[in-house]
Amino acid sequence: MRSVCFLQGNEIKFGLRQGDQVDEINDPSIASIEDLLSALMEGRRPSTGAVHVFGELDLLPPVPRPGKILCIGLNYVDHAKESGHAVPDYPAVFMRGPSSLTGHNHPLLRPVCSDRFDYEAELAIVIGRSVHAISEQDALNYVAGYACFNDGSLRDYQMKSGQWTMGKNFDQTGGFGPDLVTPDELPEGAAGLRVVTRLNGEVLQDGNTSNMIFSVAKIIEILSEVMTLEPGDVIITGTPAGVGFARTPPIFMQAGDVCEIEIEQIGTLRNPIVDAAF
Amino acid sequence: MRSVCFLQGNEIKFGLRQGDQVDEINDPSIASIEDLLSALMEGRRPSTGAVHVFGELDLLPPVPRPGKILCIGLNYVDHAKESGHAVPDYPAVFMRGPSSLTGHNHPLLRPVCSDRFDYEAELAIVIGRSVHAISEQDALNYVAGYACFNDGSLRDYQMKSGQWTMGKNFDQTGGFGPDLVTPDELPEGAAGLRVVTRLNGEVLQDGNTSNMIFSVAKIIEILSEVMTLEPGDVIITGTPAGVGFARTPPIFMQAGDVCEIEIEQIGTLRNPIVDAAF
Repeated sequence: MRSVCFLQGNEIKFGLRQGDQVDEINDPSIASIEDLLSALMEGRRPSTGAVHVFGELDLLPPVPRPGKILCIGLNYVDHAKESGHAVPDYPAVFMRGPSSLTGHNHPLLRPVCSDRFDYEAELAIVIGRSVHAISEQDALNYVAGYACFNDGSLRDYQMKSGQWTMGKNFDQTGGFGPDLVTPDELPEGAAGLRVVTRLNGEVLQDGNTSNMIFSVAKIIEILSEVMTLEPGDVIITGTPAGVGFARTPPIFMQAGDVCEIEIEQIGTLRNPIVDAAF
Repeated sequence: MRSVCFLQGNEIKFGLRQGDQVDEINDPSIASIEDLLSALMEGRRPSTGAVHVFGELDLLPPVPRPGKILCIGLNYVDHAKESGHAVPDYPAVFMRGPSSLTGHNHPLLRPVCSDRFDYEAELAIVIGRSVHAISEQDALNYVAGYACFNDGSLRDYQMKSGQWTMGKNFDQTGGFGPDLVTPDELPEGAAGLRVVTRLNGEVLQDGNTSNMIFSVAKIIEILSEVMTLEPGDVIITGTPAGVGFARTPPIFMQAGDVCEIEIEQIGTLRNPIVDAAF
């Protein structure tokens, strides 16, 4: 199944997507994203009502306000090298807050204070069931689905201190969506999937999830040793080589650009770049 | 006013504390922490009903599940020096997730995988009204209140990569509370308040909020340039010197210890240390 989340008036709604069609979920057992994730984990298709055209919806991230957004840095050897870092033996983990997210087709906002707005194509994992201290072998049982993520980064703010948080948390810089795709539609652990960034149609990143240093299952093992992963928590798994700041000359996103993140079998996340009003 | 949050059965409730007495909030306009923060911002005392004894309540953090928990590292000169860092000209910011929090009198959990569990006494700021790009001059208008925080840190996990997130996010390692104290009860910007850590009664940290490198107002200016601060977001403002890992010999918290964080005019947060079951 492919779930989406959208706004209708001021109401947050959920739907199931098939191509251009979205069936709005209208199921007495589903009042929240946690309820929806629970149904997806059980492989139960929620009952639906109204039918919408995908392209006409005001899409939110498939999990609109995750409790935790955990981000793995330097998880591809080629990206660690281009960033001047050693290949890590333990992941570099930072966090984003929900105010940094935006949905498919919504603008990614370039703040007025920085002209170093970079893209990062990433596979996102959404946790479906609470888990603590799980082994790599059993970790995939706790995944509700996968999605595309653009870990938009203001490189100057990211490097103002040793902690990357600030450059990763500008408002509406993290594209997330459009669909949450359940694991049964994908290879085990979402391995072997091509990950591409296109900026105005030009391919700038072209990696594959099989080249992650820490696999989906291993990441869940490592994170869950430390903290309980809760339903709706999101883990973004790092980006392959080709980011803008490591290029000669560097490429940064500008107002009027369109950035697309495509992950094979998962879908395409598209966001126009807009200058923030202040 | 001093607000608290507590569990009764499975229900989250709010109250107003005066010494040993807690008046349970029973106000049709207050159904959530955001509603309560809104009332506190207006200086409006919610209507109350049942009366409880403070010491008998099962206390949660005064904001039970913050959307963002932003943590300022190295914000006291003496602590930056004892940690081997330069005095920063821009704050080091990392984040905690809500699963890392625990309430007053609840255990701080020492995980089985680390014996380097350290205390950090910190002043916590709770945001009361949504704010973006605010100046230092106007920043305090967005503060709903202040509280004590123990930024419990697993030092070995904190240093496994350059990003400190993992050592700061073990389950139930961040003590928070007991009260949220509104600004009218305190000096402007909570400045000039003594901050003390006692472990089993022994004073191990003894600082003052006036020695923060970035003041409360300045921190809000800097963070809000980057991201919208939302009602219920929590900012912890760094710890003074005296942390355990920087001592000779080092001191780490052990099962059976009791750690208290006291901030002058705000209160005392008390947590026993317990070994996690797994």
